[in-house]
Amino acid sequence: MTDSLTLREISNHLDGEILSGDPDSIITGVSAIQDAGPTDICYYGSAKYACYLGSTKAMAVIVSEPVETAAECVLLVHSAYDGFRKVLHLFKPDRTSGFVNSHSSAVIHPGVEMGENTRIGPSVVIDRGCIVGDNCCIGAGVVMGPGVILGNDCHIHPNVTLLAETVVGNNVIIHSGTVIGSDGFGFVPHSRGEHMKIPQNGNVVIGDHVEIGSNCSIDRAVTGSTKIGAHTKLDNLIQVAHNVCIGRGCFIAAQTGIAGSTSVGNGVVFGGQVGVGGHIVINEGAIIAAKSGVTKDVDSGVTVSGNPARPHMETLRLGAAVSRLPKIIELVRELNTGKIGETGD
Amino acid sequence: MTDSLTLREISNHLDGEILSGDPDSIITGVSAIQDAGPTDICYYGSAKYACYLGSTKAMAVIVSEPVETAAECVLLVHSAYDGFRKVLHLFKPDRTSGFVNSHSSAVIHPGVEMGENTRIGPSVVIDRGCIVGDNCCIGAGVVMGPGVILGNDCHIHPNVTLLAETVVGNNVIIHSGTVIGSDGFGFVPHSRGEHMKIPQNGNVVIGDHVEIGSNCSIDRAVTGSTKIGAHTKLDNLIQVAHNVCIGRGCFIAAQTGIAGSTSVGNGVVFGGQVGVGGHIVINEGAIIAAKSGVTKDVDSGVTVSGNPARPHMETLRLGAAVSRLPKIIELVRELNTGKIGETGD
Amino acid sequence: MTDSLTLREISNHLDGEILSGDPDSIITGVSAIQDAGPTDICYYGSAKYACYLGSTKAMAVIVSEPVETAAECVLLVHSAYDGFRKVLHLFKPDRTSGFVNSHSSAVIHPGVEMGENTRIGPSVVIDRGCIVGDNCCIGAGVVMGPGVILGNDCHIHPNVTLLAETVVGNNVIIHSGTVIGSDGFGFVPHSRGEHMKIPQNGNVVIGDHVEIGSNCSIDRAVTGSTKIGAHTKLDNLIQVAHNVCIGRGCFIAAQTGIAGSTSVGNGVVFGGQVGVGGHIVINEGAIIAAKSGVTKDVDSGVTVSGNPARPHMETLRLGAAVSRLPKIIELVRELNTGKIGETGD
Repeated sequence: MTDSLTLREISNHLDGEILSGDPDSIITGVSAIQDAGPTDICYYGSAKYACYLGSTKAMAVIVSEPVETAAECVLLVHSAYDGFRKVLHLFKPDRTSGFVNSHSSAVIHPGVEMGENTRIGPSVVIDRGCIVGDNCCIGAGVVMGPGVILGNDCHIHPNVTLLAETVVGNNVIIHSGTVIGSDGFGFVPHSRGEHMKIPQNGNVVIGDHVEIGSNCSIDRAVTGSTKIGAHTKLDNLIQVAHNVCIGRGCFIAAQTGIAGSTSVGNGVVFGGQVGVGGHIVINEGAIIAAKSGVTKDVDSGVTVSGNPARPHMETLRLGAAVSRLPKIIELVRELNTGKIGETGD
Repeated sequence: MTDSLTLREISNHLDGEILSGDPDSIITGVSAIQDAGPTDICYYGSAKYACYLGSTKAMAVIVSEPVETAAECVLLVHSAYDGFRKVLHLFKPDRTSGFVNSHSSAVIHPGVEMGENTRIGPSVVIDRGCIVGDNCCIGAGVVMGPGVILGNDCHIHPNVTLLAETVVGNNVIIHSGTVIGSDGFGFVPHSRGEHMKIPQNGNVVIGDHVEIGSNCSIDRAVTGSTKIGAHTKLDNLIQVAHNVCIGRGCFIAAQTGIAGSTSVGNGVVFGGQVGVGGHIVINEGAIIAAKSGVTKDVDSGVTVSGNPARPHMETLRLGAAVSRLPKIIELVRELNTGKIGETGD
Repeated sequence: MTDSLTLREISNHLDGEILSGDPDSIITGVSAIQDAGPTDICYYGSAKYACYLGSTKAMAVIVSEPVETAAECVLLVHSAYDGFRKVLHLFKPDRTSGFVNSHSSAVIHPGVEMGENTRIGPSVVIDRGCIVGDNCCIGAGVVMGPGVILGNDCHIHPNVTLLAETVVGNNVIIHSGTVIGSDGFGFVPHSRGEHMKIPQNGNVVIGDHVEIGSNCSIDRAVTGSTKIGAHTKLDNLIQVAHNVCIGRGCFIAAQTGIAGSTSVGNGVVFGGQVGVGGHIVINEGAIIAAKSGVTKDVDSGVTVSGNPARPHMETLRLGAAVSRLPKIIELVRELNTGKIGETGD
């Protein structure tokens, strides 16, 4: 949260080495290499962007190896991308709410245990029996149902809904519009269509350092808990059904849906718009390509793609085969005509 | 909403028969067979879980036929799954809000007709001309626009938005974040890109006993009504476009989208992430497999899958053919080489 | 916002010509041709609905060429669909909130610059540094974070969340549940799964005359802005990732997702449930069919479909080839048997 820093200050913060440029150069912002202005710092992390090195208007470029560039200053660090992350932190805009702690319009049940230094926005509702940790920031319009437990250092953005008995760990970020603890989709089907609801008696438990994007839906368990492991990151508009168990350190891209009782190991990566069926096991370190439809268990470390999802190399092989299919059909016809020619003449 | 019951009490409630175990055994919770603790009751409903019968730590198992099990008590009922549903009801946690009726922070227009015994959470907004039935529970942050009509015995969860003129039947459950009555997506396209909005003058009408998951979007009609029939159940993050008409007793899994003016018969079942085009008719009892893309009408009782959706057996047949394609291509090449060999030599 | 008009009044408003019927006929509503009642006006715009011309109960039909119809009155206009749009405007229901300007339950930071004639619903929260234009309507429960700028004549529906520094143009409509300015999905991956968040320092900028459906998620940029061009229309449940740049006059149907840094030209049309990868360029006037998975750049004016997306004619050709595949395989087997017969005998 700063307006300007010298190149030297940035270099010190990043434990870097100034390869060129005046250490007293004043940097006022962070930008992408192609968009940077004359007092910005940017980073160069992929050969894909080499074309901008010569034309960038940036004052400084963060690199992990020496480069030729139009920028006056070059700052060498161990990882350019992580250096970029660190300068973004230095220049992070101040987005703190202008409303002071526990705004008078917030409605907090008398029995709530409230941590220290936790900021409650306007129109927040915290129901009976909730326990809220220290140093949290709870945005305007957030609703916490009865018995929700929220750890320390959490940021719950505006208009999030945490329903009854949801348990959230420490250092968790939840973005706006997300609903945690809605009822799972469970019914006893009925022949005349008068399906009967299965009560969803369980809850949702979210580990430490989890981040959940906006407008996600994470359903409570029938019994026990729907679980999201520590350090797992969810993008936006994701569906997590009842009794799903997601491991530690997973990445799940936007609009993916995971059906009931499916188990996801540690470090699994999902592309966007993936669908996973119910009662499936996706093992540690698997990668699920975007738009895959996973209909059976996935082995550890395997990359799958397609619908139904197959090992990615197989999907590629079948895709390539299909691409050649019209020519193959032509060839088969010629062969067949030849044969007919042979046999018919 | 109880803490413990004897096996006898449960058996009586389920109209069951105790096959083994002490009728005075104290049961304190409901769980899945693989997770159950020593005072839990669980159910055994599918051979898939037979492996847990011998190892379960549950005190009691609900079954629909006699089984060998490690559990001390066995309770025989007509349908084990429905028995499970009933004991879940018995042990349902108390999730009632700690805020009393019509919380002072709720904003209710003076002209609203409010039913008896209806509980209004904090920060609820009910606009002019709304009619709210008896015995409803309206969660914190719910907004009801002008002229909304809500039946009896409805549960509208926190942060739901019911827009102007939406009509909701009796015994309806709507989960958090869902928006009902947003404008349909209708424009008169314009060559210079200055598209003109078609006013969406209609509304949404939701039948009795409907349940709608979290973060769904159900658009109002251009004229007339977008309709969801009685006893239909929607999962989360579902899109229902303007003038869609959904029948009675349907199941729609998460992230499915149905485009404008499509008509869905009674008892249709949708898997997750299905897309249905506009102006399509899906007839009674059809089943649409997950991730299907429905581009034309579906006959009554037919199961379709794939994109574009076809009868499921055909999708399977084509899928199997594609799986064999690389080998077939090899074979064709050999045949062709042979032929070239024959003709070229 | 009227209850009834004469055919003459409507004709004058539409600059039309009454081909048949009494100009003093009283019209009380607008409807679809198949649903119309005896005092309704409807339109006939597509041969698909010709079957209803003879049976419609409508009093009047808007047409762009003379037709035979059961309706008493026929009103000829240049474009029937645009005429329909105009009469819908005439009969638009009054949906204005019953709560007066700047409801006392709204929480508006003292430093906010508020335009004239702007209506603020109950429980709205507008944080420090916001600038709100004239003639806006801000629905109940809307939250505007610090530094949001909103133009003139905007309609922000209930329970929308506009996060810090979001910039919205003039004449913009945003539907309920939509979140604009949530953090983009950016992390420095970590081998032990302890991924580090990339601060998302940028914002979202939305052009004039944009309409965004309900429950959409539009993420702020890492640096700079995520942009949605003037006159672009988004349906519901759409994901727009960080640093996406969408041109002018685009249509994006429901549940489509666009990954980070992708650039979309002017006048691009997306069907529903499309997925577009990151760092892709979709050029002006392209059409992306529903459920496509776009994995590489799309040329100007091209229609693509399928996953991975290809030029639509190619997708059709491959689809047709796959449909014939089982028969082709049979044929190849016969050829092969024949060959074996030839060589083996």
